[in-house]
Amino acid sequence: MPDSFPPDSVGLVAPQKLHFDTPLTLACGQTLDRYELMVETYGTLNADASNAVLICHALSGHHHAAGYHTEDDRKPGWWDTCIGPGKPIDTNRFFVVSLNNLGGCHGSTGPNAINPESGRPFGPDFPVITVTDWVNSQARLADRLGIQTWAAVVGGSLGGMQALQWSMSYPDRLRHAVVIASTPRLTAQNIAFNEVARKAITSDPEFHGGRFYDHDAIPRRGLMLARMVGHITYLSDASMGEKFGRELRDQAYKFGFDAEFQVESYLRYQGERFSETFDANTYLLMTKALDYFDPAYEHDNQLAKAVAQAQCEFLVLSFSTDWRFTPARSEELVRALIAARRKASYAEIDAPWGHDAFLIPTPRYMDIFTTYMDRVAREVGA
Amino acid sequence: MPDSFPPDSVGLVAPQKLHFDTPLTLACGQTLDRYELMVETYGTLNADASNAVLICHALSGHHHAAGYHTEDDRKPGWWDTCIGPGKPIDTNRFFVVSLNNLGGCHGSTGPNAINPESGRPFGPDFPVITVTDWVNSQARLADRLGIQTWAAVVGGSLGGMQALQWSMSYPDRLRHAVVIASTPRLTAQNIAFNEVARKAITSDPEFHGGRFYDHDAIPRRGLMLARMVGHITYLSDASMGEKFGRELRDQAYKFGFDAEFQVESYLRYQGERFSETFDANTYLLMTKALDYFDPAYEHDNQLAKAVAQAQCEFLVLSFSTDWRFTPARSEELVRALIAARRKASYAEIDAPWGHDAFLIPTPRYMDIFTTYMDRVAREVGA
Repeated sequence: MPDSFPPDSVGLVAPQKLHFDTPLTLACGQTLDRYELMVETYGTLNADASNAVLICHALSGHHHAAGYHTEDDRKPGWWDTCIGPGKPIDTNRFFVVSLNNLGGCHGSTGPNAINPESGRPFGPDFPVITVTDWVNSQARLADRLGIQTWAAVVGGSLGGMQALQWSMSYPDRLRHAVVIASTPRLTAQNIAFNEVARKAITSDPEFHGGRFYDHDAIPRRGLMLARMVGHITYLSDASMGEKFGRELRDQAYKFGFDAEFQVESYLRYQGERFSETFDANTYLLMTKALDYFDPAYEHDNQLAKAVAQAQCEFLVLSFSTDWRFTPARSEELVRALIAARRKASYAEIDAPWGHDAFLIPTPRYMDIFTTYMDRVAREVGA
Repeated sequence: MPDSFPPDSVGLVAPQKLHFDTPLTLACGQTLDRYELMVETYGTLNADASNAVLICHALSGHHHAAGYHTEDDRKPGWWDTCIGPGKPIDTNRFFVVSLNNLGGCHGSTGPNAINPESGRPFGPDFPVITVTDWVNSQARLADRLGIQTWAAVVGGSLGGMQALQWSMSYPDRLRHAVVIASTPRLTAQNIAFNEVARKAITSDPEFHGGRFYDHDAIPRRGLMLARMVGHITYLSDASMGEKFGRELRDQAYKFGFDAEFQVESYLRYQGERFSETFDANTYLLMTKALDYFDPAYEHDNQLAKAVAQAQCEFLVLSFSTDWRFTPARSEELVRALIAARRKASYAEIDAPWGHDAFLIPTPRYMDIFTTYMDRVAREVGA
């Protein structure tokens, strides 16, 4: 590892693209005959393949969770705060697997990939993917990597839903599920925000019904708005106040409609940058996967019945100012786990950063996460 | 009054358009040489003109606050729950004045009015209006109606900002300010939501830089998105859950992007209806007036110094689940009033409806509001 990377970094990493040829039947009824998954791994798989940890990503995430792709990268992977030597997910002990989910836009098969049937990008013909579909595709990935049982499946937000679904879909293939800043189902308000984002994208004239690739167009305005709305829900009122307050970019009011308050230019910048890198159809798919996730739905709306399928142990973490997925939603899950007599540890972390807190290494969060993962490592002799 | 109207309704009412020819200098430095205000009144002005109450409207409000315009109207004015015979603002005792604010799109001079200089609609040339400008124009209206002193100036949300501004701009022209579900200034999160709404409108290709009238176009998509976002912030997570939950329009998931959840179709309907009736430039102006309001700003950021200008008494009301303008924001105002040794009554009403609660006649809200206004009426001998 070159000197330029911090000592607790996994350093230079290279993604790999894995091909799958066994047809995958999806919840929607459609079948993907073949697909590719973009994957990164950190650390070393031990002899009995017992030290593997799966990282599941959230709405705008991808396979690049830790380390750097080039010597010149200014920013590491999206969860570098938690993955690396000596970090909660310690790459000196665990073999960490991170992938871009099916339907994504960072190399795995998704709407921007070529549909073999038409020779053109799938666009709106790409099937709607559910959390269960992702977990099924991740199980194939585990097979490919020779991993029968994950030491832990870990995820924040939408990633936490995948960890929870793993515990129900493949109860004998994971020892621990770590569900962070997540929820067992969206509220009406959550769905409403997702619907605004979708409507922003689909009503953008550059969306062309999802076939914007064929028109050499990008629905930038829609994606920008979707991201701006999303971003507000990732932060807390207090942290936005702390960060921006009512600070103006210049001294006085301008009485026009340019960005005047710092928070306005910040949001615009975030939205614009996102709109240049993310696929609009993927955004739609991700929000729909969020909306649909509801394991209780097929169990008489009783979450305890749903999670009774699980055999693993759970660590559930929430953050005090997260108003997207409030601590109450995590507590709902924990109550169901207790009712189903599963082993569950729970902590609400006091942090001012809203939903984004799951990406920020506050001391109590890191302490609890590290302690738990240390126990997981010792259990599997890692 | 015909039998068809409820007995506690003001019944049939007719708006009137008042012309003003004395130039009004605005906070932005521009001057409106002449303008019109659309006004409704309910009840009778008493001999010494002491029983007048001014109603100030919120973002999407207008002059039609109570009663019906035709026998066939299905819905009364927007605050009919609080204005009428025997209601908190009792039209048997008070002379109630309600107007469409300058910059509005319901008959008062605004961006969709003809600019005498160009002979075309003002559009983006209409000056940015502040809460202080509104209060100044309302003072002209009071002069016109022969009202030297309001018994009370009353408003919810953005309307509450006007009531507060009245107390500071014209301390000797009102006896009471009733500030409901409001705030002495927006937070960064509030501004952020407004910025999303503005960006949705201005990035709609049909906006044409605000000159959509000249293009025979309406930025419907942008207005719809703006309203959808706004609407989410007017309701509480709990009330949306209560009203819609995760209820589907049909039995099962459809795995597509049509509105599936009830909350999605509700939001789309609200957005579409709004986009057909509201002016996009007015929406921009209203959000900007909200963002700019900050009476403490010119008093060393000390709200107590700003409100020390006031002479009137205050009733401040907030609602427990209002996350747009939380009770904490009202308490900030009350603390400043107390520090400035003003007379203030305050109540936080326990209501599940979020910000919209100020429009809903919950018993404790009605009790407190009625009791307070009864005292106001007795003070002025009404």
